[in-house]
Amino acid sequence: MSVVAKLEECRAQIRTELDSVVDFWLRHSHDAVHGGFFTCLGREGAVYDELKYVWLQGRQVWMYCRLYRTVDRFRKPEILEAAKSGGAFLRKFARVSSTSGQWKCAFCLTRDGKAVKIQRTIFSECFYIMAMDELSRVTGDKDAQLEAEQMMKQLIHWVRVDSSDLGRPQLPGDVPTNSMAVPMMLLCLVQQLTEGRGQEMALKYRELGSWCVKQILQHIQRDGTAVLENVSLDGAELSGCQGRLQNPGHALEAGWFLMQYSAEWGDEELQRTAINKFVELPFQNGWDKEHGGLFYFLDVDGHCPTQLEWSMKLWWPHCEALIAFLMAYSQTKKPELLESFSQVYKYTFSHFPDESGEWFGYLTQEGKVALDFKGGPFKGFFHVPRCLYMCERILDDLLANKA
Amino acid sequence: MSVVAKLEECRAQIRTELDSVVDFWLRHSHDAVHGGFFTCLGREGAVYDELKYVWLQGRQVWMYCRLYRTVDRFRKPEILEAAKSGGAFLRKFARVSSTSGQWKCAFCLTRDGKAVKIQRTIFSECFYIMAMDELSRVTGDKDAQLEAEQMMKQLIHWVRVDSSDLGRPQLPGDVPTNSMAVPMMLLCLVQQLTEGRGQEMALKYRELGSWCVKQILQHIQRDGTAVLENVSLDGAELSGCQGRLQNPGHALEAGWFLMQYSAEWGDEELQRTAINKFVELPFQNGWDKEHGGLFYFLDVDGHCPTQLEWSMKLWWPHCEALIAFLMAYSQTKKPELLESFSQVYKYTFSHFPDESGEWFGYLTQEGKVALDFKGGPFKGFFHVPRCLYMCERILDDLLANKA
Repeated sequence: MSVVAKLEECRAQIRTELDSVVDFWLRHSHDAVHGGFFTCLGREGAVYDELKYVWLQGRQVWMYCRLYRTVDRFRKPEILEAAKSGGAFLRKFARVSSTSGQWKCAFCLTRDGKAVKIQRTIFSECFYIMAMDELSRVTGDKDAQLEAEQMMKQLIHWVRVDSSDLGRPQLPGDVPTNSMAVPMMLLCLVQQLTEGRGQEMALKYRELGSWCVKQILQHIQRDGTAVLENVSLDGAELSGCQGRLQNPGHALEAGWFLMQYSAEWGDEELQRTAINKFVELPFQNGWDKEHGGLFYFLDVDGHCPTQLEWSMKLWWPHCEALIAFLMAYSQTKKPELLESFSQVYKYTFSHFPDESGEWFGYLTQEGKVALDFKGGPFKGFFHVPRCLYMCERILDDLLANKA
Repeated sequence: MSVVAKLEECRAQIRTELDSVVDFWLRHSHDAVHGGFFTCLGREGAVYDELKYVWLQGRQVWMYCRLYRTVDRFRKPEILEAAKSGGAFLRKFARVSSTSGQWKCAFCLTRDGKAVKIQRTIFSECFYIMAMDELSRVTGDKDAQLEAEQMMKQLIHWVRVDSSDLGRPQLPGDVPTNSMAVPMMLLCLVQQLTEGRGQEMALKYRELGSWCVKQILQHIQRDGTAVLENVSLDGAELSGCQGRLQNPGHALEAGWFLMQYSAEWGDEELQRTAINKFVELPFQNGWDKEHGGLFYFLDVDGHCPTQLEWSMKLWWPHCEALIAFLMAYSQTKKPELLESFSQVYKYTFSHFPDESGEWFGYLTQEGKVALDFKGGPFKGFFHVPRCLYMCERILDDLLANKA
């Protein structure tokens, strides 16, 4: 089969899959009574828990808005309405005031919006910002955009100036760490807030974006042979399990964030680094040669990770790998990158999708479904549709230029 | 084979196994430089991480002291010295002062004792108390006993009067819960602090002990057909996943705590409830009919639990099941209880022990070793030796009376 024919086949499958996934969440996840989304959905879509996780509320608002705004066939009133309802729910309930008068977002809410849990991290706020910014783009609501920027300012303060208001006690043994999730999320937010908003906005976040890239690149360790999840603030390897931890899916996600950034700023060296170190390397190190699929966690020295789920195959690393390889191919046209994309594609489409709609999230090392729900506390309307959406767009571009 | 011959064979294997397990930790876990214990030990015993988890430090002190005090062949200077060193490490480093002037214990320390993390729960303190009380029994150190009692007083305040000093914000959606771990741990501590210490001490904690029992019994739900891990403060079922969660190993552990209590107070009704509801029932509900072994978590309505490790077979539920069934048999002499003991025994001894010493901790649902280390952040010198020790003592009693 020619490359074009192959990519066309892929695109057709991806389009169908995206339609089916969107349909699943439209049918099963909307709370018509209190607004917002149910995300704990069983195999067939039945709600098995009514808690509302703020990460997932924010992500679903973002994803609906993004689809509505950029894909013609999803420009439907019910998608817009659902996004608005989710946004209203977040604005009404997600922010809980902290002692210092700053806004902290809850991690988890009851069905009717009462805070259940607050994490002492920045991620609920990150997804709140993504939701508000993207919402403002479809509704034209300037307040939502302003709110996103205000929250972003606070986030930057927590990350770069003083994290004490997050409520974590400063402990002498708790060495400050550069954990990859933080600069990755910030870089993603920089891209979100600035996209298509002109020079002034680009300038406002330019230094932050370049700081994020530097922070991410610090995770290349061991003479360039591994990406480690946690390093010291000055980019040295940390001791123990924490220091040796690899999270291949996370590295791959960082890879396509970096490729996007390198394309935006025309930075070819960064593009090469992104592809070599954050796409090819974690794939080499993280792919299970025996059973296929990407491991969740690995120890760079080959010790057994202490995370009980280390050898499981999760849906999202495979989603990130698909985006990363397809984007890398589209930027370079190197056939070996398309080969790797195909390898991940084959594993992914033969293991995760289910005839009842949406994908399974959690497989055993051997590839058997270990948890059969479609949504849970950490699996919502995000990684699967974002992957399918991104891949469809990249394929559209490739095929428009005949691959 | 006669029952006596069978039990004798069991006892011989258990004794050998206990000797080997004690030997493993004596050889590999002692930190001769800073005191305390390494607990992250690989398959052969090599240290793969130097962090010191306070739960495991306290448990190892307790276990060494208990063995030294009550089993002749373990009355060895090196065991006493190791216990003392662990106790000194704990007293020097585990307590970190909190804002309100109360003592809070850290969850995790660096090798040289600097606090890395504090949990907003009571469990580090629980194991600190166990360690101090048992240590005072072998050393005669009254200060250690006093410290245990002072910490206990504070614990009771946190649990029964006001938990705000644990540092968890009071959130409107965070309904106060009776989580089984709390009354279980307190009951265990009541037994620890009062054992053999006479009338006055027994009286001091009598009301607390009986409160703990009532709290534990509240977890019998669904018309007596299930033990649920979390219930409301007035003993009603909670909604959602949290409310439907079953943890069979935990229920079995509660079972033998209750049996011990019922024996101490001559409460036959409680003994029956303990055996029916906390031993036989969780075994029925929690045993994997297909692959053998006890599930880690189950949902009482048959939904898939959201814990990624729900179907794994962990060492400690099997340890608790062995103690529970053997104790139930020794209290009742009912042959079916010995049958169940044998069933668990067979699975346990054919899956968890390893020729390099100590047991594996984490198997897949199918019984394959999923994590091959012998000690980790939650696996130390505790469940395996406590199980072997308890079983050996019960078997000694049974065989002294010719079963």
